[in-house]
Amino acid sequence: MSTTVKGIAASPGISIAKAFRLENPELTVERTSVTDTGAEILRFEKAVAQSESELEVIKEHARQELGEDKAEIFAAHLLVLSDPELLNPIKDKITTEQVNAEYALNEVAAMFVNMFESMDNEYMKERAADIRDVTKRVLAHLLGVTIANPSMISEEVIVIAVDLTPSDTAQLNRQYVKGFTTDIGGRTSHSAIMARSLEIPAVVGTQAVTANIENGVLVIVDGLDGKVIVNPTEDVVKQYEDKGVEYEAQKAEWAKLVNEKTVSADGYYVELAANIGTPDDVKGVIENGGEGVGLYRTEFLYMGRDALPTEEEQFDAYKTVLERMEGKPVVVRTLDIGGDKELSYLDLPKEMNPFLGFRAIRLCLEMQDMFRTQLRALLRASVHGNLKIMFPMIATLDEFRQAKAILVEEKEKLQAEDIKVFDNIEVGMMVEIPSSAVIADLFAKEADFFSIGTNDLIQYTLAADRMNERVSYLYQPYNPAILRLIKKVIDAAHKEGKWVGMCGEMAGDEIAIPILLALGLDEFSMSATSILKARSQICHLSKAEMEQHVEAILSMSTTEEVVSLVKSHL
Amino acid sequence: MSTTVKGIAASPGISIAKAFRLENPELTVERTSVTDTGAEILRFEKAVAQSESELEVIKEHARQELGEDKAEIFAAHLLVLSDPELLNPIKDKITTEQVNAEYALNEVAAMFVNMFESMDNEYMKERAADIRDVTKRVLAHLLGVTIANPSMISEEVIVIAVDLTPSDTAQLNRQYVKGFTTDIGGRTSHSAIMARSLEIPAVVGTQAVTANIENGVLVIVDGLDGKVIVNPTEDVVKQYEDKGVEYEAQKAEWAKLVNEKTVSADGYYVELAANIGTPDDVKGVIENGGEGVGLYRTEFLYMGRDALPTEEEQFDAYKTVLERMEGKPVVVRTLDIGGDKELSYLDLPKEMNPFLGFRAIRLCLEMQDMFRTQLRALLRASVHGNLKIMFPMIATLDEFRQAKAILVEEKEKLQAEDIKVFDNIEVGMMVEIPSSAVIADLFAKEADFFSIGTNDLIQYTLAADRMNERVSYLYQPYNPAILRLIKKVIDAAHKEGKWVGMCGEMAGDEIAIPILLALGLDEFSMSATSILKARSQICHLSKAEMEQHVEAILSMSTTEEVVSLVKSHL
Repeated sequence: MSTTVKGIAASPGISIAKAFRLENPELTVERTSVTDTGAEILRFEKAVAQSESELEVIKEHARQELGEDKAEIFAAHLLVLSDPELLNPIKDKITTEQVNAEYALNEVAAMFVNMFESMDNEYMKERAADIRDVTKRVLAHLLGVTIANPSMISEEVIVIAVDLTPSDTAQLNRQYVKGFTTDIGGRTSHSAIMARSLEIPAVVGTQAVTANIENGVLVIVDGLDGKVIVNPTEDVVKQYEDKGVEYEAQKAEWAKLVNEKTVSADGYYVELAANIGTPDDVKGVIENGGEGVGLYRTEFLYMGRDALPTEEEQFDAYKTVLERMEGKPVVVRTLDIGGDKELSYLDLPKEMNPFLGFRAIRLCLEMQDMFRTQLRALLRASVHGNLKIMFPMIATLDEFRQAKAILVEEKEKLQAEDIKVFDNIEVGMMVEIPSSAVIADLFAKEADFFSIGTNDLIQYTLAADRMNERVSYLYQPYNPAILRLIKKVIDAAHKEGKWVGMCGEMAGDEIAIPILLALGLDEFSMSATSILKARSQICHLSKAEMEQHVEAILSMSTTEEVVSLVKSHL
Repeated sequence: MSTTVKGIAASPGISIAKAFRLENPELTVERTSVTDTGAEILRFEKAVAQSESELEVIKEHARQELGEDKAEIFAAHLLVLSDPELLNPIKDKITTEQVNAEYALNEVAAMFVNMFESMDNEYMKERAADIRDVTKRVLAHLLGVTIANPSMISEEVIVIAVDLTPSDTAQLNRQYVKGFTTDIGGRTSHSAIMARSLEIPAVVGTQAVTANIENGVLVIVDGLDGKVIVNPTEDVVKQYEDKGVEYEAQKAEWAKLVNEKTVSADGYYVELAANIGTPDDVKGVIENGGEGVGLYRTEFLYMGRDALPTEEEQFDAYKTVLERMEGKPVVVRTLDIGGDKELSYLDLPKEMNPFLGFRAIRLCLEMQDMFRTQLRALLRASVHGNLKIMFPMIATLDEFRQAKAILVEEKEKLQAEDIKVFDNIEVGMMVEIPSSAVIADLFAKEADFFSIGTNDLIQYTLAADRMNERVSYLYQPYNPAILRLIKKVIDAAHKEGKWVGMCGEMAGDEIAIPILLALGLDEFSMSATSILKARSQICHLSKAEMEQHVEAILSMSTTEEVVSLVKSHL
């Protein structure tokens, strides 16, 4: 019997292969008494050391296959394994309670996991997942149980799992793992992001795959429409093979555009750029025909470590990106930390509403030493490529002026030290707070460019936390209020001869692209893997034709009306 | 030596009297063993019973002096004292550990206080304060110590304290307590709000009064400028006496306007209404010349209890308000719960960003039984006065349409049951989310009126939690972005022949009033005690003159420029 399970299309493409259930054994722990607690501690330390070696291998694998930022996850795991705050209570427990290492580990880890999970904070919840992932590995060594190792898969399969942990995904072998599907997770879950960077078709959040799919059964993963077909008939297999071929053909078609300009059917040029997080991401930008970097998120430089990065470390990273981009524009966003992104070593206060809190430029204007170090590194790197600097979370003119004044001060200091700085660095800002969109005309006189950050702009404009499922219906990119604000920003910038980019998810969205083109957006910055598809779409669109619908779109009363009008013109 | 301590002006007026330090004794608890644990539990129960009697008295006092909603605080305290989740662990501890009641109470209370305080939520933190306040009272009874009782004050004094607890403020005797000043607290802290409703001059957040003021010393509290003068010279006393007389004269002048219309110097009428929380607040509205209720917050009906209010309870409250307002307009806002305002019996999920979460209309559209009960109560009350219904937190047209459709359904049901409903109830909405301001023209075709909720509109538009001190500099009512959105809303409404009110703090602000008048705001709703001052101000303003400055104001780049322009015209 063929059955179809629906889920969330997390990574595009079609794959057909046998199911491989990635299951981890139940690790049951019993409490036993030990007399030689010294030997027990040694046994524990050995298991930790074995886990460390494994994690080093996984980290290296991740670095090669997935890049530096993904490898950082395992650097964080290794830190957990050397954290005395975790290890000491376990050893103490072994000694004072004369219990076995498994039991002591399990108890202490559970306490930490509960503590982090009860915190009202996504970052801390992730820490709980990290501790669970790491301690499970140590526990398996103590129990002499082998935990599933996806890197051992040696035939073509589709991986079926409840969820994939960071260490699972990092070990997936691209050669054999043709696709995967999970019970839990969403489009932005860790496993979904991994699938897209591995370019493996994936369907997540099905609620049902592990319950419905036996090992070895034939499975189709349709990462285009978010479906998993179990035990398909021959006809259905054929049909999906065709769909896969068609998608591959389309991809091949897109690939031809890799060195092309992005120009609409009626001859209007726009720039398609990529969002990146680390210097290693530049490779993907070039391979996918990116005409620039529209958003270099500098947070990764600050994360997964226990102190601020030095000026030199930052300079190296910025210089590397600029050089690898070979003169193409690179927009670097200064540190956007706080809110949902915390840094343990900064010891920021807990906030009731972190998304409305002390973050990004607000924090940088107060912690000026940190900010000035980043600006100096950027200024020094400016002579190595086409750098543009952008400040995040600007709400008022005052803030922009303060940030720019600090930049000018640092520039003058460097020049006084005879250090070369490019003289005409463009200095712009994110437009992601409603106030800055409403008074974009005032900002346009002082900023060299805008980049509209739609993820935040939407959540603030509709007052709905995009991470909160109960109000996710309000995350509406096509809401007329959002489109009007975008138009206001673009018109205001163009009036002053400035350019406008967009670096939220909306910039790569096929419903949004025709509208944004009509509104006159100059630069679209998206994930590198979306660029060719977007270029292909724009090449088939007429800007003039779409412009005729702008007025109607901006007066529509709901998102649904906007979507249906745009679809009728695609 | 005369010294001046600066603080926050929390309640206007001048008072001069001797200092009375309101100090609570240190309650030291030691652990002792008890053998007759049954007797110890009885002793504990007796102390609880004594505390209950005291709290009943305080509650009654609060009800008479301060009104129903303030009395609710003590209803909540009484609930704490009857909560088995608090009492049982204490009794268990006495029994199993054979310890004294003081120790058991102290340990268990500290656990709860720590638990609530560590929660990332203002409401829960207040619960911690409640538990501390209540258990201190029980502990004092156990120890046989008398805690400070402000109701015993029998000569004219100025109360000096670190902070005032709810039970302290409720017991203040208006006849003798001429003013107070505290080390901690802000303009919206509990003690500041109490001072304003008691009409006692107060300066809070001084950081320094308890350290600097001895009992019996002469003190001046300047609640107009936020200063406390200790040991003033005769000249200074004279000077402040004059200032006090002047302020009283001004108040007397304002009082003459109590039955007047609100009309600008050039003959333009506006309505000055009041924000209320309970039927008891209507008295203050009438006394202060309110021309209507611009915002009836219905949350108090739902708070400090353990189940939803019935339709009948709500009907009674709404009917009472409508009748007492004698045909003057009453805008009732439907339930705005969630976010910082939680209801224990609804068991809402904890949220990472409650201000961007599942609250107000979002919650009502999902919990429709609760919403429909409120709407039925309102519809039934509509024949008893001039009712207008308003939905909070509307972000999209869809939401407004859904809410209105539910209202229409309930109206038709009532009519089918032959229950009278006024036929032309105006149905409007809060404009407090940026999206609804941006597309106000679309809303104006469907809503009968708008009320701009500036507190939320400002915090969302500038993406800054107004409760978070680190970003409080971004709470900018005069930011050009805010003023432009307000103009947009007013213009859009007027184009469709609809009226616009404002019910945030801004409506009663003397810098904002001239601008709002010029922008054409129809109704200003504020705390009742601000109405006469605002009426006096408007009577001296020329709308036409202020209109000449609107364009300049909306193009100013900072809040400071706006403030200085307005001040130059006052």
